[in-house]
Amino acid sequence: MSYHLYFNGQILPIESALFQTNDLSLLRGYGMFDYFRTYNGVPFRWNDYWARFENSARLLKLPLPVSQEETAAILTELHTRAGEAEVAFRFVLTGGYSADSVSVVQPNFLIRCEPLPKDNPAGLLKGIKVLPYDYVRDLPEIKTTNYVHMILMADEMKQQQAADLLFHKDNEISELTRSNVFLFKGDSLITPDRNILNGITRRTVLELAAPHFDVQVRPVLLDELLHANEVFTTSTTKWAMPIVQVGEHTIGNGTPGNRTLKIQELFVKLVEQWGK
Amino acid sequence: MSYHLYFNGQILPIESALFQTNDLSLLRGYGMFDYFRTYNGVPFRWNDYWARFENSARLLKLPLPVSQEETAAILTELHTRAGEAEVAFRFVLTGGYSADSVSVVQPNFLIRCEPLPKDNPAGLLKGIKVLPYDYVRDLPEIKTTNYVHMILMADEMKQQQAADLLFHKDNEISELTRSNVFLFKGDSLITPDRNILNGITRRTVLELAAPHFDVQVRPVLLDELLHANEVFTTSTTKWAMPIVQVGEHTIGNGTPGNRTLKIQELFVKLVEQWGK
Repeated sequence: MSYHLYFNGQILPIESALFQTNDLSLLRGYGMFDYFRTYNGVPFRWNDYWARFENSARLLKLPLPVSQEETAAILTELHTRAGEAEVAFRFVLTGGYSADSVSVVQPNFLIRCEPLPKDNPAGLLKGIKVLPYDYVRDLPEIKTTNYVHMILMADEMKQQQAADLLFHKDNEISELTRSNVFLFKGDSLITPDRNILNGITRRTVLELAAPHFDVQVRPVLLDELLHANEVFTTSTTKWAMPIVQVGEHTIGNGTPGNRTLKIQELFVKLVEQWGK
Repeated sequence: MSYHLYFNGQILPIESALFQTNDLSLLRGYGMFDYFRTYNGVPFRWNDYWARFENSARLLKLPLPVSQEETAAILTELHTRAGEAEVAFRFVLTGGYSADSVSVVQPNFLIRCEPLPKDNPAGLLKGIKVLPYDYVRDLPEIKTTNYVHMILMADEMKQQQAADLLFHKDNEISELTRSNVFLFKGDSLITPDRNILNGITRRTVLELAAPHFDVQVRPVLLDELLHANEVFTTSTTKWAMPIVQVGEHTIGNGTPGNRTLKIQELFVKLVEQWGK
């Protein structure tokens, strides 16, 4: 059993060299992706991830070469070949090969079946540090492949022992490089409503939190976040990860708060039962 | 004789499928490029293009795997194999293959030797239309592969019979999608000094114009451009291409001006003698 990928109709070993050099994602950064995982062997919120992927493709004007049903069959095949209970799937849709390095003719569609990334149990328990970063993502509602700032700042993050960047512009926060951000002000759970990617884990947390907290989805200032009682970030791989430091500023008392731990608990219950 | 490419030490046919699917330019848009051509079989301003490429690589923290001298030998080999007097070279340096889709380990270096693109003699004579577009390039001094807006707007440009986009933000202009912009106000030749790529053709035009015109390199407002006597754009493939319409607004009397034609004439003289 071993990890494989799907590329334009073929199933191939994960290390295959495939892309011709005139693909528009290589030459022009014209590509988009999505990423999700299984729990109990079942893709988490597959309909939601597919809908988001379809939406990104529509906004980038790239026709999807396969239906959701056909794609589900490909996922099953890749999952079986991997021979692991839990896997992650990475979708990449690019502008395809282009003779003039501008015109889209036929997108390339890639699905990689990957091992789950190492999780960060220490981070979930103790919280992480992030660096404030003056930036707003271009076309934030599309999951494009543009993550240049994240990689550019990797050394700086390591040096400052930070796990991620917190994007803000004109004092308004939006998101982290690959995840959404929430804050607690007393029992109010607040998260930005604009310049963000529509995270599936974000949506899950909003649903889980609704019976327990006063949920507010609205613009959020950086100052408001810095003075929040608790802050956390959500993503497919981070779940609800406490943020206890933003640059040199400590959030609350510098440890994960009880309300964030409550969100984690609700999330763990959900995924433990997923597909059962 | 046929077109070939260089990839990490090998010379291969131009259509070769080469890239593994975990390259950081595919997954994260982490890549940069450069593009130049020959005149009389000799690469145009090779030292300048190389210096710019080196600078982009340094700013993206990507080590260059080969020296300028080694690269020059590769260009000669590719040029010989192409068997054409005039060719274009496209350099692409990517973040390379990444196990965690974040960490740079070893960049991939690609050089494509390509046929010259079709030039646009009608455009040089009659001028082109561009669409004003509210945007400023991210990391403008780096020639990254991020050209998403250009491709996203391709249909709209075709519909409006426009050849390109003119980027402006807060009423200040910067550049077109792949070229610099100049305007004439009487005998003053003016071009923006910030939020631009440092174009080699731009630099050539500044040098050629200096003895003939009052050259000003400084911030330029969109309004100033709209009311200029003449406007043109410069790039490796466009030379000095007159812009006669910006959206619904006509520049001057809607035909290329004499001063722009003078710049074209100076440029043609230079490249006709290049390498001789």
